[in-house]
Amino acid sequence: MKIGIADTTFARIDLASFVLSTLKKEVPSAKIERYTVPGFKDLPVACKKLIEEEHCAIVLALSMAGSAKIDEQCAAEASNGLQQVQLMTNTHILNVMVYTNEEKDEKKLYALAKDRVIKHTLNALALLQGKTTLTPFAGTGKRQGSNDAGTIRK
Amino acid sequence: MKIGIADTTFARIDLASFVLSTLKKEVPSAKIERYTVPGFKDLPVACKKLIEEEHCAIVLALSMAGSAKIDEQCAAEASNGLQQVQLMTNTHILNVMVYTNEEKDEKKLYALAKDRVIKHTLNALALLQGKTTLTPFAGTGKRQGSNDAGTIRK
Amino acid sequence: MKIGIADTTFARIDLASFVLSTLKKEVPSAKIERYTVPGFKDLPVACKKLIEEEHCAIVLALSMAGSAKIDEQCAAEASNGLQQVQLMTNTHILNVMVYTNEEKDEKKLYALAKDRVIKHTLNALALLQGKTTLTPFAGTGKRQGSNDAGTIRK
Amino acid sequence: MKIGIADTTFARIDLASFVLSTLKKEVPSAKIERYTVPGFKDLPVACKKLIEEEHCAIVLALSMAGSAKIDEQCAAEASNGLQQVQLMTNTHILNVMVYTNEEKDEKKLYALAKDRVIKHTLNALALLQGKTTLTPFAGTGKRQGSNDAGTIRK
Amino acid sequence: MKIGIADTTFARIDLASFVLSTLKKEVPSAKIERYTVPGFKDLPVACKKLIEEEHCAIVLALSMAGSAKIDEQCAAEASNGLQQVQLMTNTHILNVMVYTNEEKDEKKLYALAKDRVIKHTLNALALLQGKTTLTPFAGTGKRQGSNDAGTIRK
Repeated sequence: MKIGIADTTFARIDLASFVLSTLKKEVPSAKIERYTVPGFKDLPVACKKLIEEEHCAIVLALSMAGSAKIDEQCAAEASNGLQQVQLMTNTHILNVMVYTNEEKDEKKLYALAKDRVIKHTLNALALLQGKTTLTPFAGTGKRQGSNDAGTIRK
Repeated sequence: MKIGIADTTFARIDLASFVLSTLKKEVPSAKIERYTVPGFKDLPVACKKLIEEEHCAIVLALSMAGSAKIDEQCAAEASNGLQQVQLMTNTHILNVMVYTNEEKDEKKLYALAKDRVIKHTLNALALLQGKTTLTPFAGTGKRQGSNDAGTIRK
Repeated sequence: MKIGIADTTFARIDLASFVLSTLKKEVPSAKIERYTVPGFKDLPVACKKLIEEEHCAIVLALSMAGSAKIDEQCAAEASNGLQQVQLMTNTHILNVMVYTNEEKDEKKLYALAKDRVIKHTLNALALLQGKTTLTPFAGTGKRQGSNDAGTIRK
Repeated sequence: MKIGIADTTFARIDLASFVLSTLKKEVPSAKIERYTVPGFKDLPVACKKLIEEEHCAIVLALSMAGSAKIDEQCAAEASNGLQQVQLMTNTHILNVMVYTNEEKDEKKLYALAKDRVIKHTLNALALLQGKTTLTPFAGTGKRQGSNDAGTIRK
Repeated sequence: MKIGIADTTFARIDLASFVLSTLKKEVPSAKIERYTVPGFKDLPVACKKLIEEEHCAIVLALSMAGSAKIDEQCAAEASNGLQQVQLMTNTHILNVMVYTNEEKDEKKLYALAKDRVIKHTLNALALLQGKTTLTPFAGTGKRQGSNDAGTIRK
């Protein structure tokens, strides 16, 4: 099964490198198809082409969004587009977005981005294994980019 | 008829457990198909696959949303996706979302979530029975997660 | 020609009763198909099923929305879904929504709701008659739920 | 080629009259199909029917929106619906919307509406002539409902 | 391969001229198809026609948006429409939008617009070459209309 990676020249961190190193460690034999586009608004059609033209079984859509209001609007547009592609193709796309205002410090932002991308790469592998692979973790407050929030009990 | 349950590892309460115990009590013979995904943005395609690949007659989409602005945006995206899936498949999906800011106290939030999930599980069973099963309750101000609001009279 | 009515258990007024009494008076022979769902987010697929499975020529989608921000968001989602159903089926759906904050006084809210539902039932009958039945009233500031706004002249 | 006009009883100005007088002057032989609906949320499916059932080559969708927040929301829904219809039919729909808060004075609002409708009627005729009929005016800051904004030069 | 240019009479700068001069320099043999429409809300269907009727392999959608709230709403609608066209056609559309409030000074706005259009024309040419032509620049913080933001390192 082929795994797709869609990323952008707009992002300020090479997010795809974290996917590549994680896959190398976890599934050294994984077939990977990469597609780099200018910005996140170009990601939906890129993901659709990875699925329909390159036959990827799942795609990681990697992007970074600025903190201005127009950036949020564009991010929402891209996210809606990624939803549509998933429904048109019955294929998961993990929408891994990092907002630059999540962390002021660049080193911390880098660490957050790395954590989020690695965890979502592992999520993608779990989804490829089956519908209930993640079920033991349902309702456990998993987070990507920060510590898990944990379970709220009765 | 098969009932689908789609839930997330992001949620901090095992919402599916309330569906399972309710179905066990109400329809012990019910066939259930579960699909656990990372977050609510992954729910729409999971629901579509439950309907199209697993032939579920109805799906309960269970999720929790944080209180930040970005969480609301993501919840809206997921909801729009769930709308689209329903229209693409002519199948009801009960979108059961709990916002963490609905109750500050975790015990109260747990109780609210349990009440909402159980009532929507019963709603799902009613919808499976026919178009007018809920008609005697039309306009009666039913609520899930809190007390009913009741009817406004002339 | 069959007329569909989709309504909710969430609403606090039995909005469908106003449709039924209006139709009884105006078109006693009208065939009516009703579908009651939990909330307005369940209306779009219900309307689609009324059109595609029950062959309704037009549908009145009746709902009430609370005044919290999340209610507005849900109402917008439902409305977008109703738009999509109309375009997928080339069939009018009159989206009759009452916001609880339109009137603080419950008796006035009841009267507003009744006025809006009756007028939109008459609009539905006019649309069933043809594309230009309402043309003599084009630009005349018709309102449902309040007095007409009237025409602005040169 | 047939030109469609979709308008509403909600509008407070007979916007279609400006289309009719402009067409009479510019293209006396034009075939016109009109469709009047209650409000702007009913326009998208009306336009789709004008294109698919009445074979209109272009449609002018004429509407007025109030100034309350809910009116803006409804206008956005209608506009999104009109976008979808254009993409489903590969046909232009000129979405001519007048907001009542664009001008406080009713006479000025009437003049604004008239100017906007006439200019968009001429735009429709230009689009029917070909893809580059408007090219000589590209980037020249044309406005409908007010004076042109003009070109910004180097 | 044909390159499409969709532009508007609403824009106050002849954005297409920057595409034309860039293509003349970079790919003198490029076949170009142009489509000029009134405003950005008319761009999605124009782009769809350029792709489906004129067989363009990629389209540059060029527009300018005012700074009022309604302009932002319209820009969002146009952007969502452009997303849909890309997914319906599996073809990239570079959505090149300039907001008049990005620069108060008209000369600076002109320079910004020129920079953005030229860089996106080069992006279009790169995308036509293949999925990994831009990969060497992934995560390097490329910007159009301003200086690049650069890479954030570990």
